[in-house]
Amino acid sequence: MGNNNDFVKDITNIEEDFAKWYTDIVIKAELADYTNTKGCIAIRPYGYAIWENIQKYADKKFKEQGVKNISMPLLIPESLLQKEKDHVEGFAPEVAMVTEAGGEKLDEKLIIRPTSETVFDDMYAKWLNSYRDLPFLYNQWCNVLRWEKETRPFLRSREFLWQEGHTIHESEKEARDFTLTMLDVYENIVQEALAIPVLKGRKTESEKFAGAEDTYTIETLMHDGKALQAGTSHYFGQKFTIPFNVKFQNREGKDEFAYQTSWGISTRLIGAIIMAHGDNRGLRLPPKVAPIQLIVVPVAANKPGVIEKATEVYDGLKEKYRVEIDKRDQYTPGFKFNYWELRGVPIRLEIGPRDIENNQCVLVRRDNFEKIVVSLDELDAKVGELLEEIQKNMFDMCLENQERRTSIATNIDEFTKIINENQGYIKAMWCGSEECEDKIRELTGAKSRCMPFTQEKVSDKCVCCGKPTDTLVVWGRQY
Amino acid sequence: MGNNNDFVKDITNIEEDFAKWYTDIVIKAELADYTNTKGCIAIRPYGYAIWENIQKYADKKFKEQGVKNISMPLLIPESLLQKEKDHVEGFAPEVAMVTEAGGEKLDEKLIIRPTSETVFDDMYAKWLNSYRDLPFLYNQWCNVLRWEKETRPFLRSREFLWQEGHTIHESEKEARDFTLTMLDVYENIVQEALAIPVLKGRKTESEKFAGAEDTYTIETLMHDGKALQAGTSHYFGQKFTIPFNVKFQNREGKDEFAYQTSWGISTRLIGAIIMAHGDNRGLRLPPKVAPIQLIVVPVAANKPGVIEKATEVYDGLKEKYRVEIDKRDQYTPGFKFNYWELRGVPIRLEIGPRDIENNQCVLVRRDNFEKIVVSLDELDAKVGELLEEIQKNMFDMCLENQERRTSIATNIDEFTKIINENQGYIKAMWCGSEECEDKIRELTGAKSRCMPFTQEKVSDKCVCCGKPTDTLVVWGRQY
Repeated sequence: MGNNNDFVKDITNIEEDFAKWYTDIVIKAELADYTNTKGCIAIRPYGYAIWENIQKYADKKFKEQGVKNISMPLLIPESLLQKEKDHVEGFAPEVAMVTEAGGEKLDEKLIIRPTSETVFDDMYAKWLNSYRDLPFLYNQWCNVLRWEKETRPFLRSREFLWQEGHTIHESEKEARDFTLTMLDVYENIVQEALAIPVLKGRKTESEKFAGAEDTYTIETLMHDGKALQAGTSHYFGQKFTIPFNVKFQNREGKDEFAYQTSWGISTRLIGAIIMAHGDNRGLRLPPKVAPIQLIVVPVAANKPGVIEKATEVYDGLKEKYRVEIDKRDQYTPGFKFNYWELRGVPIRLEIGPRDIENNQCVLVRRDNFEKIVVSLDELDAKVGELLEEIQKNMFDMCLENQERRTSIATNIDEFTKIINENQGYIKAMWCGSEECEDKIRELTGAKSRCMPFTQEKVSDKCVCCGKPTDTLVVWGRQY
Repeated sequence: MGNNNDFVKDITNIEEDFAKWYTDIVIKAELADYTNTKGCIAIRPYGYAIWENIQKYADKKFKEQGVKNISMPLLIPESLLQKEKDHVEGFAPEVAMVTEAGGEKLDEKLIIRPTSETVFDDMYAKWLNSYRDLPFLYNQWCNVLRWEKETRPFLRSREFLWQEGHTIHESEKEARDFTLTMLDVYENIVQEALAIPVLKGRKTESEKFAGAEDTYTIETLMHDGKALQAGTSHYFGQKFTIPFNVKFQNREGKDEFAYQTSWGISTRLIGAIIMAHGDNRGLRLPPKVAPIQLIVVPVAANKPGVIEKATEVYDGLKEKYRVEIDKRDQYTPGFKFNYWELRGVPIRLEIGPRDIENNQCVLVRRDNFEKIVVSLDELDAKVGELLEEIQKNMFDMCLENQERRTSIATNIDEFTKIINENQGYIKAMWCGSEECEDKIRELTGAKSRCMPFTQEKVSDKCVCCGKPTDTLVVWGRQY
């Protein structure tokens, strides 16, 4: 558990300074720490265990779609990155370059992957022959580097961990369908495992991934009303497969270039969990990804039989749930309550001499602090039930925040007023011009999050220029 | 499965050119492929699935020892690597350097981690306060880079995947014990999961890890009689914790520097599996790490009911075992037999019209080609039994090879003669001088593998210089 003298009083108030509150939680809950490699973090065991749970859940969902994992090189020869024009323009400013290795200057610079479309296409060209080989549904769990100027743990780090899926298909339709299938998988991961509601839609031209024909996104809303892009899925058409010569013999015996997708989620999701669910006592972790689902805290542990009974209770639960017991004798129960609340453990189980007499224990929910006295005979079933309830309640609380912070604006003054007062999502019509997008960003600090799949007609003209339009965009300030 | 027109006849004969046979297997069984990043491979789905199975097995064993996973930065500031003299001397010649990033020249070069002792110690100094915090038992699964001049897929690659465990302890004894505990865990992984016998021992001074006080190893012997170091565990004492200032308040209230270990296994183990078990028909995979444990091949699949029955059999097995069915209609059963033999699938299940009439199928073992007719009613249990038998038999075959290729030498002429004729392990006494080690290497091409834990007195004087000694070393040519 590491040395820790944190108390809740050391955490910045969440309503006063959300950014500082966030950093406090990251550091004090021992999720991650700053390192001497500027802009790069160390993910500590408690933070990494959340990532492992996300990985396990996601990897299973990917494999259900027929996706297979592979491993591609970290380093990309500069000439390879340059093969697709829009892509290199998008990423060149933020790459890190290896120029020396093995004691010598390299003939060609090697780029640390910021993303791997180019490497996958280079190999796909080698591996693909016939339509019978298709689709290639490959993914890798790996690290990538983007030389960001301003960094924040999990949210924007120069190095981060992610998965990048890259698939090629024999037809545009199949590739487009798969792009949206993976967006649905992401929706499932974020809503079901992370208990965060998502807004699904397509990105505008200016917010697209560098080189994509279409970028789809799942957007989430944080406690403070700012938006976080939680995952994206891209359709590339033949934009990479033509320059990389990824072709196959189609069913008619003719050469055709393959149709491509890519999609990614990252350790950013840990940031989303913190900011969507946290409160003034610290983290609140959704049971499905919590490294510890229940913490047993013996009360009056020095009294005869308490530690023994608490251990027995722990032993009875540990096969089925992720459970730990806090037997540290240098701390009071009060200290431990704060300690595990800070770490967001969904259920605390208290057991003391009087409980033991009555064959019971007390369960305390982290989501709403409700205390429940439970007979030890019914404990196992009750814990399972409660974890499900907490998971659901956390989703509902997030949804309530999102709904409360979703507004409609029909002109720019209204837009500005709402975003300044309430942050959140602003639903407003958009004419489709980049000019209006830029102007809205300048005036309000909000960017287009997406053109949601569920379109509504909240007005009949662009919120900025007033031109007639049918397109609804959801806007918001972002992380 | 990808496009594949390989036939067994395209594989180089294993006895004629083992090195070429090895490369053939890697490429034709679609385990990995060369990339345009020189010295770096792409691990393809079938190869990566083996790695995932090794990871799953190993990670569980690590966690049983209390080890927790974390993630440290990929890039190490040059000044950090230089803090421990022996370490930097060992690794400096083979590092890759990032000198430009985000469009600018960096003030300080960043090294892509060749190993992460320095980064862990830098953070441990920050995280450690009291003996109560100890031990830190942390591990990371990640990629590392070492700029090797000559590379071979899996065996020696500039980038490779591995796990690196780094632990610190409050006493020398505890750290030394943990070094050996992890060596035992490695022995278990390689013997039980990979079905390869290991030789355990301590490395000589000249074969130690750069910066270690003691390096322990598990050595394995390949089909051709050359040795492969399969995993190492190091005891560092305070060699890093002093320069990195990793100290804690001990039980007496005084400052003390922590005692450190590290240990690693890598994708090299995939190379070990290929070279320890393979034969002229291709890979042979131990059932415990085989991505596919049983392949169903319908025979006379165009006859009515065959595909349906084969699918029914497949459905009946797939929950319990890793099973696939090959329904491709463009290939003959004969082609498919070769295809799956090349890929080392432990059991092939053939089922055709006559089998269906008799409520049976045929199981063919990949390890010894034995054919077994089994009633469909007993299939499930028989498959489980057979997988265990194959796992055991593969270990025994390897052990037999190792025993047949283990010799004793009492003088250098004998040593030279044996290694030229039989390769393998040579047991010979050693005086302890680096001079004799160097001379033996020059004359025979063999290096000391280790000083085995089970010492024998095969002679009473050094095999090279003739000085009296009690130390047995096992020698061999190596990968």
